[in-house]
Amino acid sequence: MFGEFNLIDKYFSARQTQRKDVHLALGDDCAIVKAPEGVRIAISTDTLVAGTHFLADANPAWVAHKALASNISDLAAMGATPAWVSMALTLPSIDEAWLKPFCDAFFELANYYNIQLIGGDTTKGPLSISLTVQGFVPDDRALTRSGAKVGDWIYVTGELGDSQAGLSVVLDAEKRHEPFALELEKRHYISHPRVLAGQALLNVASSAIDISDGLISDLKHILNRSQVGASIDTSLLPISKELMQFLGDISDAQKCALTSGEEYELCFTVPEQNKGSLESVLAHTGTKVTCIGQIRPHGTFELHNKGKKLNWSLEGYDHFKAGV
Amino acid sequence: MFGEFNLIDKYFSARQTQRKDVHLALGDDCAIVKAPEGVRIAISTDTLVAGTHFLADANPAWVAHKALASNISDLAAMGATPAWVSMALTLPSIDEAWLKPFCDAFFELANYYNIQLIGGDTTKGPLSISLTVQGFVPDDRALTRSGAKVGDWIYVTGELGDSQAGLSVVLDAEKRHEPFALELEKRHYISHPRVLAGQALLNVASSAIDISDGLISDLKHILNRSQVGASIDTSLLPISKELMQFLGDISDAQKCALTSGEEYELCFTVPEQNKGSLESVLAHTGTKVTCIGQIRPHGTFELHNKGKKLNWSLEGYDHFKAGV
Repeated sequence: MFGEFNLIDKYFSARQTQRKDVHLALGDDCAIVKAPEGVRIAISTDTLVAGTHFLADANPAWVAHKALASNISDLAAMGATPAWVSMALTLPSIDEAWLKPFCDAFFELANYYNIQLIGGDTTKGPLSISLTVQGFVPDDRALTRSGAKVGDWIYVTGELGDSQAGLSVVLDAEKRHEPFALELEKRHYISHPRVLAGQALLNVASSAIDISDGLISDLKHILNRSQVGASIDTSLLPISKELMQFLGDISDAQKCALTSGEEYELCFTVPEQNKGSLESVLAHTGTKVTCIGQIRPHGTFELHNKGKKLNWSLEGYDHFKAGV
Repeated sequence: MFGEFNLIDKYFSARQTQRKDVHLALGDDCAIVKAPEGVRIAISTDTLVAGTHFLADANPAWVAHKALASNISDLAAMGATPAWVSMALTLPSIDEAWLKPFCDAFFELANYYNIQLIGGDTTKGPLSISLTVQGFVPDDRALTRSGAKVGDWIYVTGELGDSQAGLSVVLDAEKRHEPFALELEKRHYISHPRVLAGQALLNVASSAIDISDGLISDLKHILNRSQVGASIDTSLLPISKELMQFLGDISDAQKCALTSGEEYELCFTVPEQNKGSLESVLAHTGTKVTCIGQIRPHGTFELHNKGKKLNWSLEGYDHFKAGV
């Protein structure tokens, strides 16, 4: 029989490389860590709840990846270098067939980003995973939401919309027969946090956010915090060929790109004078970035298609309005 | 209608004193904080789940207090000075009648300990609260579980057993008529983390743990990590007059004191040569401490009553074996 203590030992202790700044990890009342000199600590907490953020029968490896990747993405959006993670894992019961692939995927991703699991709590209850990740930013710089200025250019990394399309496959088995449905379903769970891009952008971007609630909603967080507006050309939105074939209509694909949550791409702004250096600072990261619009004065928010104004009504994702 | 963002604004932003080491709190992708020089960071995560750790209809102010106090207690057990907390709050719906007293009690306790809420995540789902607290310990010292040596004296703070008695009242309304039942019920929820005592013990204790699973279980964590054994004189266990009257039997009260979880008192060990200074280092904290036994060689674990050996079979609390 597995109790709380054996669970920690069996699945979580000694599974990972040891960071030199972790003096005490699992197994005491607290973890003890030490931040390097010259840095501030960036901290983010995210929770995934079965039935709200994923279905209880979802692939446990994908759930682990999504839980950790969504947190790392918040570090990426600040330009932070990941370091430590704490996990609060609530389980209805000890199910080894679920825990093993969950832990394998969790540690694979954590080790890839050189993140050490330093502590946590396993409790009995409805399935949920809450992670607190920590990383480092230089003392004098971090990418925040509040630095965008009128005239700055608006960029996004990668391609947008795949996550929402994948979610529609999760929720409607009929859609599994559409083109690329299974690939899009996988992309809903498996994202690649833009850590290297975020770090590179520390030198050129004026603001940044990761796209978790949907491009429009998240961009509006930048606009609110920076007290500016924006103009977006939907014809510039980066859309995958898989999404285009899945939806079969360019307007539908653009709307999907504007509202799709849990993308974990970055949306960021770049002043005119830094536009030229953007490509070179990102070159070593292999990150595709696309300019989709420009920052306008506060109070302005317009969507257009190559200059033709659009009156689309779009809402971002809010977990208190809609569950999975 | 309240969405996720308004919820954060209304209940959590700008409710608290601002720490100077918090450069960015709620409202961005990450919080940004800075640890002082000469310290390491102690980090602990604890989760309370409705139905496992408290009943869904429990007083929300008490639930908030319990959630934060249990985390602060982990910092106390390391001798750490509390600093920051992140909250992952999962709610079935936005219920202002629940949220207001919950937040009031949370911030009252946080402010008392000079802890700032730096970030978190509010999600929809079965009620649970997961907190990650952080504090500071000196670079060269922390109270761990691994430093106990044969011959060290075993101490506990406060009085033990009240929490388990209070839980029995929560679970069985008939017991509300027993003496002090309502006071004990309150004590099950409301504990006073031994932060000052923990800091004072940095200079004199060889090991420490907070009593969350029950004295026997938690002491055994010290014994395992320190590779030692123990002898406990049950006649020395500090028991409140309320518990004694509630149970009406001294042996029952002692058994309760040995197994009662969620006490959030400290159990710690003190080398013979530091025993004399214990009283003076604790004087300013107003903490009652009681010597209950002594560390013995590895493999030994004995309970006795003034020298008379006891064969009590006792088990600690494990949330995967028993819920509320």
